[in-house]
Amino acid sequence: MTRRHVLGTLAASALAQPSTARINAARLRDRLERLSVFGRPAGGTFADGVSRVAYSDADIAGRAYAMSLMESAGLQPRIDAAGNIFGRRAGSDESLAPVLFGSHIDSVPNGGNFDGDVGSLGAIEVVQTLMEARITTRRPLEVVIWSNEEGYAFNNGIAGSRAAAGRLDPGELDAVWNGMKKSEAIRRIGGAPERIAEAKLKPGAFACYLELHIEQGGNLDREGVPIGVVEGIVGIDRYDAEVRGFANHAGTTPMADRHDALVAASYLTIAVNDIVRREPGRQVGTVGQLEVSPNAPNIVPGLVRLVIELRDLSSAKIAALGEQIRARAREIAAQTKTEISLRRAAHHEPALATPEVQQAIEKVCAKMGLRTMRLPSGAGHDAQAMALLGPMGMIFVPSVAGISHSPKELTRWEDCARGADVLLQTVLDRAA
Amino acid sequence: MTRRHVLGTLAASALAQPSTARINAARLRDRLERLSVFGRPAGGTFADGVSRVAYSDADIAGRAYAMSLMESAGLQPRIDAAGNIFGRRAGSDESLAPVLFGSHIDSVPNGGNFDGDVGSLGAIEVVQTLMEARITTRRPLEVVIWSNEEGYAFNNGIAGSRAAAGRLDPGELDAVWNGMKKSEAIRRIGGAPERIAEAKLKPGAFACYLELHIEQGGNLDREGVPIGVVEGIVGIDRYDAEVRGFANHAGTTPMADRHDALVAASYLTIAVNDIVRREPGRQVGTVGQLEVSPNAPNIVPGLVRLVIELRDLSSAKIAALGEQIRARAREIAAQTKTEISLRRAAHHEPALATPEVQQAIEKVCAKMGLRTMRLPSGAGHDAQAMALLGPMGMIFVPSVAGISHSPKELTRWEDCARGADVLLQTVLDRAA
Repeated sequence: MTRRHVLGTLAASALAQPSTARINAARLRDRLERLSVFGRPAGGTFADGVSRVAYSDADIAGRAYAMSLMESAGLQPRIDAAGNIFGRRAGSDESLAPVLFGSHIDSVPNGGNFDGDVGSLGAIEVVQTLMEARITTRRPLEVVIWSNEEGYAFNNGIAGSRAAAGRLDPGELDAVWNGMKKSEAIRRIGGAPERIAEAKLKPGAFACYLELHIEQGGNLDREGVPIGVVEGIVGIDRYDAEVRGFANHAGTTPMADRHDALVAASYLTIAVNDIVRREPGRQVGTVGQLEVSPNAPNIVPGLVRLVIELRDLSSAKIAALGEQIRARAREIAAQTKTEISLRRAAHHEPALATPEVQQAIEKVCAKMGLRTMRLPSGAGHDAQAMALLGPMGMIFVPSVAGISHSPKELTRWEDCARGADVLLQTVLDRAA
Repeated sequence: MTRRHVLGTLAASALAQPSTARINAARLRDRLERLSVFGRPAGGTFADGVSRVAYSDADIAGRAYAMSLMESAGLQPRIDAAGNIFGRRAGSDESLAPVLFGSHIDSVPNGGNFDGDVGSLGAIEVVQTLMEARITTRRPLEVVIWSNEEGYAFNNGIAGSRAAAGRLDPGELDAVWNGMKKSEAIRRIGGAPERIAEAKLKPGAFACYLELHIEQGGNLDREGVPIGVVEGIVGIDRYDAEVRGFANHAGTTPMADRHDALVAASYLTIAVNDIVRREPGRQVGTVGQLEVSPNAPNIVPGLVRLVIELRDLSSAKIAALGEQIRARAREIAAQTKTEISLRRAAHHEPALATPEVQQAIEKVCAKMGLRTMRLPSGAGHDAQAMALLGPMGMIFVPSVAGISHSPKELTRWEDCARGADVLLQTVLDRAA
């Protein structure tokens, strides 16, 4: 114990040994492969992906496996009222707030074996590496595996971390999915829905939140950069658009007399694409859902409903894009003799990563000789809930061809290991 | 009898009396209102439209009513093997081929009370008027009420007249709809499916086929012209288009990396509209059906299937439009990084009205002081099957605002009467 404390003191002083510590890449790979068995399609292999939907038997089994790994890393896992799994490692100064880090292990149906898993088992690997290297940090460390990040269950994601941020939706525990109430689902994984308010973290509960995750987009892979430093998680505005024309016989209605809702909706879809692309920046805009009525080959479409989604790190930019689309929609309606209504149906604020944490990740990578690239996260993450409570940073590793939420999702083993090493060094930096 | 034959001889000589004969407008209206009861929504009125789908109980009741009217007009109705109803009136020269005229009384679900009904009861009214005026034509006359024109049943219309033209599709009698075989359906309305071949009319079976019908489009109503002289029934080409992109996360996929099938499909929809509109003429082109996959707000669309329909009186023009759309589709695919395939899934030849018959209708209208307008029929009619067998002509009356296949379908009573009078005079002209 004496020797360990001495080493801990060394670590806290950021001397040579901690900065050259490296995680065990072979062990991390082995554990990711073992975790993939829980929710694997019958008769499949690692490459066939995983269906480990939150609250399912596969999720419960995967969580049990993850908790066994936490124990082997010297952590005593505990499950909070929302079903999140925490494991604490003492620091040399227990009066300080801990560094919190982790991710999730639930998946979408037919998902891949890297989304969430790399950051969760990577976090455990960091602690196990510190234990084996007998490094004690000044601040305590806290590993977390959030429950139901994907939100396939109950169509409402980032659920565990939202509970920790005190941002549950009203009535959320009464939601029913697949014949199961959400409160029952939380109880199934060891949570205590009747005490859900206790899951809320207190102000100053952590000094910094860190999350390692696969990019899910193709920027790092295309540029050949091993580490992405996340600038923030984009905000999302979603508009329900309704295009009203007049349904009529496609044979007897002259072109000049038509009020074709699908022609108008097509102009609107192209307008969204053009308006979003013509400005510099990384904003994205999508019409992903569109329904035609009455949708028969011989009837001029009378009604089209579609959903426009806009994402960017800047809410001002999202709002400005929305206004440009509204203005163009008015012109299109006039030109096509239709009526177009746009209703903002959802609004999620961006969650910016803390500049100091971004710089810390870059400093660590520079020391390790790793190239980095700043980029936004276009997908949602538990980190966005934690950004409401304190300093936050995210480390991205490359997704081959940008494919995710698919059995084809792939992050190379060396990239997984590099990401966990950057997490280790950033934890040491932030816990010093 | 002597007096009647004398009058008949006068008619054949086209003297004053036949050319001033007029149908009984009040009786025609009364009978159209009485027919509307069969298939009327429970508790509804005439304005609530009709659902008299072919082979239904409402259709059978409506046919029985129409046959009773034929009897009151001195006709002895007979049902052929395909379920078509014929009624023959002798001419003064029974060695000549008859003039055949009529329409249908089946409707689409939630249809109107004019489509088919005006031409069917108008045809009976013509014969009743001749009987009452004691006019005998030189040629025999034959009134027909075709079975299943709309084709809502078995999704295959113009069924009775196609049987009469010997153009049934292979296996058509074995088709099943609503748990009923088509052969059973034909038997239900008094047909004899085992002898369906006997429904085929012999060459020279009629001297001329005439059909009075509502326009269903808005040309006559907009121009204030009471009578349309149909140039022909348009041909139809239908293309199944498949646009293949790549489904991906709408948050993490940069705009430049997308292969958005819906953006490509939107350009294609607009191209169809533009290409069809930029040429002079009355051709129409429609994308009426479109399906997006996976169709979720947060996924870049990976696949869109849509149907392109082109109609015109000239098959060469339809083919040329199809080629222009194909060429544009290739450009769109290249520009949007998608693949677009177009497959011609259906091809119906146009059916031209006989010029001499068109001129005869115009001559009759000129004598009656009625303005006429030549126009194509964008919708299909039984007349297109008859055009395969002999001379054909169609008389259109205005549809208010061009609305059809709807309870709002409306042709003013005076226009119904004018159309029946023009039919009467054209029958007299062609039967002389």
